[in-house]
Amino acid sequence: MDMAWALDTFFALFAFTLIILMVPGFAMLEAGLVRTKNVSTVLTVNTMIYIVASLVFFFWGYILAFGGWNGSSMSKYAAFLFQMAFVGKTVNIMSGGVSERTRIIPLAIFTVFMAGFIYPLIVNFTWGADLLKGTFLDISNMHDLAGSTVIHSTGAWALLAAILIIGPRKGRYKDGKVKVVPASNIPLVVLGALLLWIGWFGFNGGSVGSISSKNAADTVAMVVMNTNNAGLIGGLVVMILSYLTYKKFDITMILNGALGGLVAITAGADVLSPVASIIVGLIAGILVFYAVPFFDKLKIDDPVGALSVHLVNGIWGTIATGIWGKGISLAAQIKGVIVVGIFAFIASYIILYIINKFIHFRAGEDEEVEGLDVKECGIEAYPEFKRAI
Amino acid sequence: MDMAWALDTFFALFAFTLIILMVPGFAMLEAGLVRTKNVSTVLTVNTMIYIVASLVFFFWGYILAFGGWNGSSMSKYAAFLFQMAFVGKTVNIMSGGVSERTRIIPLAIFTVFMAGFIYPLIVNFTWGADLLKGTFLDISNMHDLAGSTVIHSTGAWALLAAILIIGPRKGRYKDGKVKVVPASNIPLVVLGALLLWIGWFGFNGGSVGSISSKNAADTVAMVVMNTNNAGLIGGLVVMILSYLTYKKFDITMILNGALGGLVAITAGADVLSPVASIIVGLIAGILVFYAVPFFDKLKIDDPVGALSVHLVNGIWGTIATGIWGKGISLAAQIKGVIVVGIFAFIASYIILYIINKFIHFRAGEDEEVEGLDVKECGIEAYPEFKRAI
Amino acid sequence: MDMAWALDTFFALFAFTLIILMVPGFAMLEAGLVRTKNVSTVLTVNTMIYIVASLVFFFWGYILAFGGWNGSSMSKYAAFLFQMAFVGKTVNIMSGGVSERTRIIPLAIFTVFMAGFIYPLIVNFTWGADLLKGTFLDISNMHDLAGSTVIHSTGAWALLAAILIIGPRKGRYKDGKVKVVPASNIPLVVLGALLLWIGWFGFNGGSVGSISSKNAADTVAMVVMNTNNAGLIGGLVVMILSYLTYKKFDITMILNGALGGLVAITAGADVLSPVASIIVGLIAGILVFYAVPFFDKLKIDDPVGALSVHLVNGIWGTIATGIWGKGISLAAQIKGVIVVGIFAFIASYIILYIINKFIHFRAGEDEEVEGLDVKECGIEAYPEFKRAI
Repeated sequence: MDMAWALDTFFALFAFTLIILMVPGFAMLEAGLVRTKNVSTVLTVNTMIYIVASLVFFFWGYILAFGGWNGSSMSKYAAFLFQMAFVGKTVNIMSGGVSERTRIIPLAIFTVFMAGFIYPLIVNFTWGADLLKGTFLDISNMHDLAGSTVIHSTGAWALLAAILIIGPRKGRYKDGKVKVVPASNIPLVVLGALLLWIGWFGFNGGSVGSISSKNAADTVAMVVMNTNNAGLIGGLVVMILSYLTYKKFDITMILNGALGGLVAITAGADVLSPVASIIVGLIAGILVFYAVPFFDKLKIDDPVGALSVHLVNGIWGTIATGIWGKGISLAAQIKGVIVVGIFAFIASYIILYIINKFIHFRAGEDEEVEGLDVKECGIEAYPEFKRAI
Repeated sequence: MDMAWALDTFFALFAFTLIILMVPGFAMLEAGLVRTKNVSTVLTVNTMIYIVASLVFFFWGYILAFGGWNGSSMSKYAAFLFQMAFVGKTVNIMSGGVSERTRIIPLAIFTVFMAGFIYPLIVNFTWGADLLKGTFLDISNMHDLAGSTVIHSTGAWALLAAILIIGPRKGRYKDGKVKVVPASNIPLVVLGALLLWIGWFGFNGGSVGSISSKNAADTVAMVVMNTNNAGLIGGLVVMILSYLTYKKFDITMILNGALGGLVAITAGADVLSPVASIIVGLIAGILVFYAVPFFDKLKIDDPVGALSVHLVNGIWGTIATGIWGKGISLAAQIKGVIVVGIFAFIASYIILYIINKFIHFRAGEDEEVEGLDVKECGIEAYPEFKRAI
Repeated sequence: MDMAWALDTFFALFAFTLIILMVPGFAMLEAGLVRTKNVSTVLTVNTMIYIVASLVFFFWGYILAFGGWNGSSMSKYAAFLFQMAFVGKTVNIMSGGVSERTRIIPLAIFTVFMAGFIYPLIVNFTWGADLLKGTFLDISNMHDLAGSTVIHSTGAWALLAAILIIGPRKGRYKDGKVKVVPASNIPLVVLGALLLWIGWFGFNGGSVGSISSKNAADTVAMVVMNTNNAGLIGGLVVMILSYLTYKKFDITMILNGALGGLVAITAGADVLSPVASIIVGLIAGILVFYAVPFFDKLKIDDPVGALSVHLVNGIWGTIATGIWGKGISLAAQIKGVIVVGIFAFIASYIILYIINKFIHFRAGEDEEVEGLDVKECGIEAYPEFKRAI
């Protein structure tokens, strides 16, 4: 029907637009979390990812994922745009976690592989053309509405591989101590996290795929509510834990708690009840709060907390969907997590390792001390503000 | 009809998303207006309010306001989300006006009471289940499209109560003079105010409640136009007054003038003609311009001008709707303003007073001088920028 | 049909909202690109333009352009709002290019003339009531979907006229050298450019004018995709050229490349194939990269690169639409570019010249050295941050 086609196309474009708000969202969040001397580089990386990942997905990634261009119930261009909005997120997650020490060019090359091969193949196996159908690796039964596993874990597995290869920032772990590196611009952190939050409504809501019937509209609205609630409770839990532990409200941790809740609810917002969604978000917040120091204990240096937010909660959310989701097989969820995890980690590791052989990911020692902006961009982020530290 | 249900649900979600843009809107506006030493605290408070107010409204506030979950012409979840997006605004208005001296925990406790009792009861009396129906306090005849009184005045009456209890910032009124405290980050002020402005299109437009008929669509579009025009003219008037008075363009005052116009038009954007809307906004701008120094003369210390924007113009807009609105009773408008005002002020005062007995709202003197960020958050907003003042 | 009316009205309001995101978009971009001492002035100018241009268009500009208020297939208010969202952009383009030396009042007066006469007449000749119909100047056959020529070139011709009258910033061209003036806040530049990018989806997508049929929805989606792709490739090309030329990634240039691609695709996103759109954006990026130093060689001082982005690519995009657009006459495109160019430049020059006779556009020498914020606004943008330079 014409009107349903029109409405679903419009809705997909609306969702696409919200997700694109996550481009400034990630950019501001990461620019706020790193030190001023690396801000221009982080911003350039975020812009580069949007550009390179989107174009690669347009030229071949989308076809690899879905077997061709189609929009059975909406404009094929709108269907593409919605999917395209997702792809850069996997690399955003990865690049954020290796910031303050990683050069732009190798990241750009990895972006081509992630957006052109790793991510499209994972989509293929789960939401898409399904090359693994019928094999023992078939994971098409995993329920992952908008990508707790397909996107968030994938990006975070790539990040883990990258951290193992690239190593921690200079001086971060010294004499058995963890050196705290304070975020340089808290308003940007808050702005970025809130833009991500808003983008999530498009991410999860749009993944329902239609809004043009009463049923579909109700599902979309429930998905948006569950998504928002999980973010709220994730933030609340960390707020409370932060105060109980330190007698202070750590705003960057609170926001990571909210983002953790959002990641966790992404797999099952359409099949979890409102109450279950709250529980998923609540546990997500707890996981973030304890995962951040845990990774530091392992000397896994992740300046933005991406592993705690996206890996831990990508896994948690997918499994929780198997536990509480209506009609979902827990076994299929676990199998999906494992297969995607192994594939994403190994494929990323190999590609990162090979790139690293030819073009070092790691900036030189002097460059890292001086800040990456000088050599990578030739542009200081705040040239007129005198540095206190 | 299915398609109307789908379209109205989609429209409510669209409006909801715009209103959530007001979360970063308020956060950036206030973070820009306060001094750098209090920026992290202000940002934490804004984030806390969104989290706590929304969850409280989800758990019981919404039911208290409307008597139950329903969506007679759209998804009940979409109807809820749209209403939920409003609730935090009342506390945002209040917290902004007592910033730079107020601690987070008592604000969080007050948020529970505002979002869980005061605001839901006021909604109950006006838009909702209507417990006062038939009593001599019945104010359900007041026309208040999107909350000039229900939201803006309510939040601002709570603010007035809070200022009376908490007092002005240290050294603000000394030797009969008003010490000017310059805003620390003007780009954030502008960004925040403009995001609020955009959010207002969802606030007022969405309050029409439907877009799925020709009539409804025309009303929504007129509401958005009237809303925008009132903001524009409010800003213009202050721009002119600012130049005539000081030979300078005070951008923070201009934006407050625009916000004042937006507050004032919120009651009657659907029943006022385009010309009347312009007049409402014009007078709103004048009111803001003269109210700001007036409150300072009374030694009522309101760092962000919230009383001038939200109290004065919440009242003005509601009454103007009675004067020029088609088929609106001026008496009902005045009665609504008075009943809500008395209830909001007294209820807030009592709750604030009791909270304050147990946990002081006011930060310690040293804490205030040093900046609240150190003790409340343990996080400086801009640790790397050397302070000039 | 009621439902189509409703859907198209909603879609126009959605597009309107996205375009209004360009108000903070331009404001943040320009606030980030200029020096801190001029930031408040730039922000005030951007706010003033939105206020003055919109009101002038409401009071008479819209009628001059279109001959009256109408919305044959949607609410007349929605049709107006969508058009109104465009008008300020012409002045934004102009004001950005003369920033750091130009006072607010003469800019406000010029805004009245641009939004009230020059732009409405150009719209009249092209999209609107068409006073030139049948004359030898008839340019109504030019295909310009969303204003490569009507908006972007128009604003940029006015800018060229203004630069010729106002002159370069003090000390910018000295002893045959171009003094580099570094951008003061790179995160704001990125945020602003990305908000503009998102606004462009509303700009171009909304210009299709309808989404309520299958055909219309498909066209809108294709327009959004072509728009985004042109921006992506424009950014990519500059990224590559920047690295090949300087061995550095200049993020401000990359973003200008993307904006150039977006400007160029604005004329023909509905009649160009996806492949042609990529080529249009690719050439746009190259043009930006070489135009920026070219204008500096001519001592045309344009702090934000507006001529390279909006003039060069406004022309390029309109002509490219004649080359590759389905059923478009290249001759009509060229004629349109020339007629609009001559009219916009001469009309702007005359008006700017006359204004400048009475109220100097140019700030005094001392004022320019000290920064415009002190005298124009009385407000420093970042009063607490110590200056390094």
